[in-house]
Amino acid sequence: MPNYTLYYFNGRGRAEILRMMFAAAGVKYMDKRFEFNEWDKYRKDMPSMCVPVLEMDGGMRMPETMAIARYLAREYGFYPKSNMEMMRCDYIADCFYEIMHDYMRYYHWKNGRFRFNIGGGNMMNPGMAGGDTMSPNYDNYMQWRYMNTCHRVLPFLERTLDMHHGGKHFFMGEQMMWCDMMCYCCLENPYTENQAMFSKFPKLMSLRTRVAAHPKVSAYLKSRCNTTW
Amino acid sequence: MPNYTLYYFNGRGRAEILRMMFAAAGVKYMDKRFEFNEWDKYRKDMPSMCVPVLEMDGGMRMPETMAIARYLAREYGFYPKSNMEMMRCDYIADCFYEIMHDYMRYYHWKNGRFRFNIGGGNMMNPGMAGGDTMSPNYDNYMQWRYMNTCHRVLPFLERTLDMHHGGKHFFMGEQMMWCDMMCYCCLENPYTENQAMFSKFPKLMSLRTRVAAHPKVSAYLKSRCNTTW
Repeated sequence: MPNYTLYYFNGRGRAEILRMMFAAAGVKYMDKRFEFNEWDKYRKDMPSMCVPVLEMDGGMRMPETMAIARYLAREYGFYPKSNMEMMRCDYIADCFYEIMHDYMRYYHWKNGRFRFNIGGGNMMNPGMAGGDTMSPNYDNYMQWRYMNTCHRVLPFLERTLDMHHGGKHFFMGEQMMWCDMMCYCCLENPYTENQAMFSKFPKLMSLRTRVAAHPKVSAYLKSRCNTTW
Repeated sequence: MPNYTLYYFNGRGRAEILRMMFAAAGVKYMDKRFEFNEWDKYRKDMPSMCVPVLEMDGGMRMPETMAIARYLAREYGFYPKSNMEMMRCDYIADCFYEIMHDYMRYYHWKNGRFRFNIGGGNMMNPGMAGGDTMSPNYDNYMQWRYMNTCHRVLPFLERTLDMHHGGKHFFMGEQMMWCDMMCYCCLENPYTENQAMFSKFPKLMSLRTRVAAHPKVSAYLKSRCNTTW
């Protein structure tokens, strides 16, 4: 087994699915976390200037959350076997990631992070110094985008779960797969912020409870770092 | 082989990678295209109210571009064999898709499409009728987001290609894989709009030429519908 190091901010975010998969597989790894004010120090050494990144044996560094998740899923038995089932698992996972992606952009924007990335100014007034003069209207766009994705994707996922045994097991049957862990991780902050919205998706909510009850996931959830996102 | 129907707008967009893979595999499918003004008619019958969607044998409909692409890649030999190589192919494909995703949001926004989706008004003035009163400042955000992704991802992809045989073959060696076709499809409009930006990535540009020269891809490119996006 390679020596794995996972690089990400000190938050759950896009990396949490990877941490949960490591835990569910019982695989040890170095969980390298850093704060936002350390990002400039790390960024230039990350393959596409983005995290999460998975490093193997202190050498090669791999970017892209979902590519890393798929690698771990194949390696540690969280992918189904047939091509049709893999496709089902893939589109379920991708749907959850759509929510995660739009939520993260919304959340970080709302909290004023990464705005400084806009080269030579800010996007509304390219000649101005960036960072602190953004219009709050962008928050509306980010929120709309995120909510729109929820309204589009969640009913489909609820129906999809219901298709197998009325949604009483996992998405792919009796075995927990990585798309089930995506359901847990991608909806953590969304659920905490807006429980009313999720009352319309009781099967997805029960699935999250089943994932959290998996012995290794349950132990992980009790011992993990407690962060706000 | 199932009877495939692919649903998408009358444009290349996110569906083009799927059409190209069908062509490269020599697999027949029904290429169901519709115009923007027909979208309301189709939307409610699409699994997550989004396209592309792949239908099999007139029955099950599968969403998510990249899940469909992976299915086709496994089915028709455009995925490498080992887990490590699959991960490499995955993160390369995902990087190109990041560009595609941000480009499509920018492009459609710029052209005034999908703004009407904002329920009950528009995002800047939620009480107003939506559709035609959006601030052009959002265009700046969309453009910045897209350009930022290009600046972050393209240098990494150029280096990654260069790692194997100085970038003279395909990303994974001598065989064309689906990540190579992603390089062609995701950069079509970006390259046409801004050739100067791509002059810094000569290896990626040569790779696109090699993909286009693949006998089946070449025949496809000559005969396909000619659209602006």
